[in-house]
Amino acid sequence: MAKLVLIRHGQSQWNLSNQFTGWVDVDLSEEGVKQAQNAGKLIKEAGLEFDQAYTSVLTRAIKTLHYALEGSDQLWVPEMKTWRLNERHYGALQGQNKAEAAEKWGDEQVHIWRRSYDTLPPLLDANDEGSAANDRRYANLDPHIIPGGENLKVTLERVMPFWEDEIAPKLLDGKNIIIAAHGNSLRALSKYIENISDEDIINLEMATGEPVVYDFNDKLEVQSKTKLN
Amino acid sequence: MAKLVLIRHGQSQWNLSNQFTGWVDVDLSEEGVKQAQNAGKLIKEAGLEFDQAYTSVLTRAIKTLHYALEGSDQLWVPEMKTWRLNERHYGALQGQNKAEAAEKWGDEQVHIWRRSYDTLPPLLDANDEGSAANDRRYANLDPHIIPGGENLKVTLERVMPFWEDEIAPKLLDGKNIIIAAHGNSLRALSKYIENISDEDIINLEMATGEPVVYDFNDKLEVQSKTKLN
Repeated sequence: MAKLVLIRHGQSQWNLSNQFTGWVDVDLSEEGVKQAQNAGKLIKEAGLEFDQAYTSVLTRAIKTLHYALEGSDQLWVPEMKTWRLNERHYGALQGQNKAEAAEKWGDEQVHIWRRSYDTLPPLLDANDEGSAANDRRYANLDPHIIPGGENLKVTLERVMPFWEDEIAPKLLDGKNIIIAAHGNSLRALSKYIENISDEDIINLEMATGEPVVYDFNDKLEVQSKTKLN
Repeated sequence: MAKLVLIRHGQSQWNLSNQFTGWVDVDLSEEGVKQAQNAGKLIKEAGLEFDQAYTSVLTRAIKTLHYALEGSDQLWVPEMKTWRLNERHYGALQGQNKAEAAEKWGDEQVHIWRRSYDTLPPLLDANDEGSAANDRRYANLDPHIIPGGENLKVTLERVMPFWEDEIAPKLLDGKNIIIAAHGNSLRALSKYIENISDEDIINLEMATGEPVVYDFNDKLEVQSKTKLN
């Protein structure tokens, strides 16, 4: 039986200022650092030992992983970063204050962009300054797959190949895994793991910095789900 | 032309207390954290951009790498940890105060253990409590190759396969690389890179937290060596 721990990054500076973040590389807030350090303590108290760690290519998730591993005396665990675990790309909304966006486009439209499973946000063009196409960390990606904006459905579709090719084989091999990522990339994983419907998934809220532990059997069926707090 | 940056970890708690460290997983001191953060600043000022990062499986080197990458806005760079970049294993001397060791075995003997290229320290047995054989991070290593103690010659011999199979091919491919490691694993690399003799290598001192930048041509010959400070 293998264990999988999912942890949503600690509070970021833009969680705090209520801005759409997406792929913008915003750092943890002071509170976010504390949450990540506390996650490490909880993981240590639970006696969880990992064989492999995964995270996105965004600083707030990477640092959360590092604090969680360091706090549980296993910073040496192999770590792999991938854009496939990135937050949902929020398109042209990235950087905007959520309240100001609601004033500009109306509450209902912004609510749909935030909560619909398959509605895309207004897209960023590859020529826009903030496009991931201009960011060195995505230089090895086929330019055609760099998103200009994603909904949860698209996010799930690009997370799943990483689950299938990398995470699932390790779990089937009995390896314990930790993934530090984002509200929506973790929603996508949880949706698949727990077989949650398109309608219900948006109501799944993961607390920042709170490790969620899944136990799997050898058919990769969930045996238990525990939140550490 | 590719660039290679070597950085010796910042001051550790046992550098401070003058103890033989080796493979014992001692943390950075407060000063060591500052040195590592400063390394990040220097790397950023020099405009160095990495494609791949390597470090040992010891916390003090891993954290130095993370501070150096974070400080230069590239914490997202892929990172690989390997025991082959670990500090020289100091055998049964690990944990001992250097002054007390000199009282016990005599100045000359301790000097030989510290400065000889090919004299082994007193060895740790695999059954000893402090043996790496009892440490989960080495669980995937052939037990026959877990050292009970190393000299610089043996350290070089286990560093070189990693250079040959992993680092050199990347440099030949034009990738810029950063390695955060230890006084002796970096001595071993420098000895090979700069073709330094068995006699002279022990006099090579790398300052903690000071990035050393090599420029290579496409035959992997050193074109320049620069210390950032």
